[in-house]
Amino acid sequence: MNAAPRNRSGRLEPGSCDGRYDCGLVSLIVQKFGGSSVADAPSIRRVAERIAKTKRAGHDVVVVVSAMGDTTDELLDIAAQVVGGAIPAPRELDMLLTSGERISMALLAMAIKNLGLDARSYTGSQAGMITDERHGAARIQEVTPMRIQAAIDEGAIAIVAGFQGFNRQTGDITTLGRGGSDTTAVALAAALGAEVCEIYSDVDGIFTADPRIVPHARKLDFVTADEMVELAASGAKVLYTRAVEFARRHGVTIHARSSFSDEPGTIVRNAREGETVEEPVVTGVATDLSEAKITVVGVPDIPGKAARIFTIVANAPANIDMIVQNISTTGSGRTDISFTLPTADLPRTLEALGAAQEEVGFDRLIHDEDIAKVSVVGAGMRSSAGVSARLFTALSEAGINIEMISTSEIRMSVVTRADLVQAATRAIHTAFGLDGDTEAVVYAGTGR
Amino acid sequence: MNAAPRNRSGRLEPGSCDGRYDCGLVSLIVQKFGGSSVADAPSIRRVAERIAKTKRAGHDVVVVVSAMGDTTDELLDIAAQVVGGAIPAPRELDMLLTSGERISMALLAMAIKNLGLDARSYTGSQAGMITDERHGAARIQEVTPMRIQAAIDEGAIAIVAGFQGFNRQTGDITTLGRGGSDTTAVALAAALGAEVCEIYSDVDGIFTADPRIVPHARKLDFVTADEMVELAASGAKVLYTRAVEFARRHGVTIHARSSFSDEPGTIVRNAREGETVEEPVVTGVATDLSEAKITVVGVPDIPGKAARIFTIVANAPANIDMIVQNISTTGSGRTDISFTLPTADLPRTLEALGAAQEEVGFDRLIHDEDIAKVSVVGAGMRSSAGVSARLFTALSEAGINIEMISTSEIRMSVVTRADLVQAATRAIHTAFGLDGDTEAVVYAGTGR
Repeated sequence: MNAAPRNRSGRLEPGSCDGRYDCGLVSLIVQKFGGSSVADAPSIRRVAERIAKTKRAGHDVVVVVSAMGDTTDELLDIAAQVVGGAIPAPRELDMLLTSGERISMALLAMAIKNLGLDARSYTGSQAGMITDERHGAARIQEVTPMRIQAAIDEGAIAIVAGFQGFNRQTGDITTLGRGGSDTTAVALAAALGAEVCEIYSDVDGIFTADPRIVPHARKLDFVTADEMVELAASGAKVLYTRAVEFARRHGVTIHARSSFSDEPGTIVRNAREGETVEEPVVTGVATDLSEAKITVVGVPDIPGKAARIFTIVANAPANIDMIVQNISTTGSGRTDISFTLPTADLPRTLEALGAAQEEVGFDRLIHDEDIAKVSVVGAGMRSSAGVSARLFTALSEAGINIEMISTSEIRMSVVTRADLVQAATRAIHTAFGLDGDTEAVVYAGTGR
Repeated sequence: MNAAPRNRSGRLEPGSCDGRYDCGLVSLIVQKFGGSSVADAPSIRRVAERIAKTKRAGHDVVVVVSAMGDTTDELLDIAAQVVGGAIPAPRELDMLLTSGERISMALLAMAIKNLGLDARSYTGSQAGMITDERHGAARIQEVTPMRIQAAIDEGAIAIVAGFQGFNRQTGDITTLGRGGSDTTAVALAAALGAEVCEIYSDVDGIFTADPRIVPHARKLDFVTADEMVELAASGAKVLYTRAVEFARRHGVTIHARSSFSDEPGTIVRNAREGETVEEPVVTGVATDLSEAKITVVGVPDIPGKAARIFTIVANAPANIDMIVQNISTTGSGRTDISFTLPTADLPRTLEALGAAQEEVGFDRLIHDEDIAKVSVVGAGMRSSAGVSARLFTALSEAGINIEMISTSEIRMSVVTRADLVQAATRAIHTAFGLDGDTEAVVYAGTGR
């Protein structure tokens, strides 16, 4: 086995201690497997083999696992039957859903033990995942993985339930919500000082664009955490924004890779001080079809009206993404305010705003579900001019109209008609020189 | 609503505070529902209605629930697939199986909350079920139901996972094994000082014999705990021996009843001091087809040989029931020893004894799976002569040969050919005057 690659200061290259190289020391690797990777008994056995291989290569291993395949949907379905259309009690829904990881983690531990290695499964509370009390969307407050550390010290592989924690004040079980298992993995990697947090899915890593939209998209070897946060928030589905944000804050290196191959995936970590990142201006293009647009027409152009509108929206509750307000130039003393939000939040937001029409004094509401968002992301945008010019030129040449624009330091997003978004993505991908020489391999799903 | 019946000393008749009567004070009722009572969403909703009715009648209610329907078998099946025929790691198997009650209890709590009452589900460890560390067959060491008491005090219905506990030394999840949920219910009833522990199944209560064998079997209104222990150990399937033993030791009143009707079932409790129990000599007849017989032929008739044989059997491990040793009268210096044991224990016991043939010096082993046991049980047997005579006469008149006999203070058991056991049971039932006027209603299963 070859020696692991090291950087100039002699440190191991992150992500290299995954069994491919002799790293010369025992390092801790956290591996996270999603529901599709443990969907049935053969899948569980295959994942167990992969974990055993990493352990046998001399590493300490902590595994975070999601519920098997469709378990969560099946549990939600029977809960809906039991309450006959009402909303299930959040505390009980968390108790119910956490049974899913209990099943997958126990089976995975059995499968590993069956390979002759020691493995022990731990619930979120046994693993010390302490959260606040918000059932269904709990935030991690503290991670006290004493039992996990003890298991590692005794040479065992610790299998930890993703997605779940417990609240110390109430003693109740909680769940972390969407992307919870990724967050569990990153939080454990941070608390245990892991060398790398490997997040397995059914795609090979992070691509310059969704390969189903852009056949010539290329897999990225490296993406900065800043870029990854923007990409994930802009629609890239391989990693969850929340987990990447946690990793960025705590300096955790993520290796996003496929559970169906041994190929290296994409390393996501903070750019190191003094590190020269030779990168293109734009790292990737993300596409998001999950949003809708609301326009509040004829809002009195007096102070406090916008604040009132967005307070109503926040309380709906809805997560606003982009906002556009036109300056009132017609002398009518009225203006239009448009914003985008997840389509799932649309009905309750329209209802909440509709109920406040008289109070706020706007004329009417328009909503539009046939929109899509395309974003270009790149740390190089910080120091590069002309990104917007190149973006708008590419779209204009493709005959695509821009409806809204929003920018951050390293991202630029535009809203287009939904049926034009694929053409827009391809045009932008080409314009920023991201096209590869070969077509990317496309898998069936997104692996979440 | 009528006032609850009271005995001569003014105490409430046990089992009467179940919502049928005005008991004049808040009493705590523990209700246990088995897997068949919560097999699907409609069943869970029906059970929730029953629980709500008890709560609305003014009682505090703690519910113990098993895993839904076939959940446990399904989990065992996938575990077998994962380990490919090997034995799953016991710690992990317990982690896996306990997900079953987690699902049923959360769904039941949701269903009750949906009826407008407060309900909260608790795992075995949250409910303070502290056990030893024997995975798969843990014994309860202590019950510390602080959270359950707090929930009751706040007016909530506490839903507790049956069958499970945790070990304080290891921090690991355990299961109680066969009949575990009944034991959980009785242990909680004891620790909380409940008025009664209602155990619901799909049969109406305890019968004088299995109604599928004896159509004229009668439902018993009352059985002493001593009798119930003997009946359960002799094959009566409505209650588990272990749970009844726990109830006897801690003075818990059990009410065995049907989850499909509002009819009272059978009260099982210790006979009270000074209480005149006007009862027949024999309370019931139990039938058991689950045992096999081993005969060790030609055992040297010298001290220590029998002890050696039963040490080997105990270490197999196997649970011996009846033992018969013939006195060696032939002058050969050799004797035969026969004993019965669960058929499931037969293969490993034959193997263990076979391996010790030379050491013990016996001639050969005979085994027989086509046996059955019929037992008559009754507290009145203590003070009544002639039970054996009446029993043997009945069997003789029916032309049934007796192969082995065993007695306790309140029980007499005989072993017959398996294909004669139904005739034997009916003959004995009639001989002891147990036949009712009408045929009992027979349900499809035994409801465990």
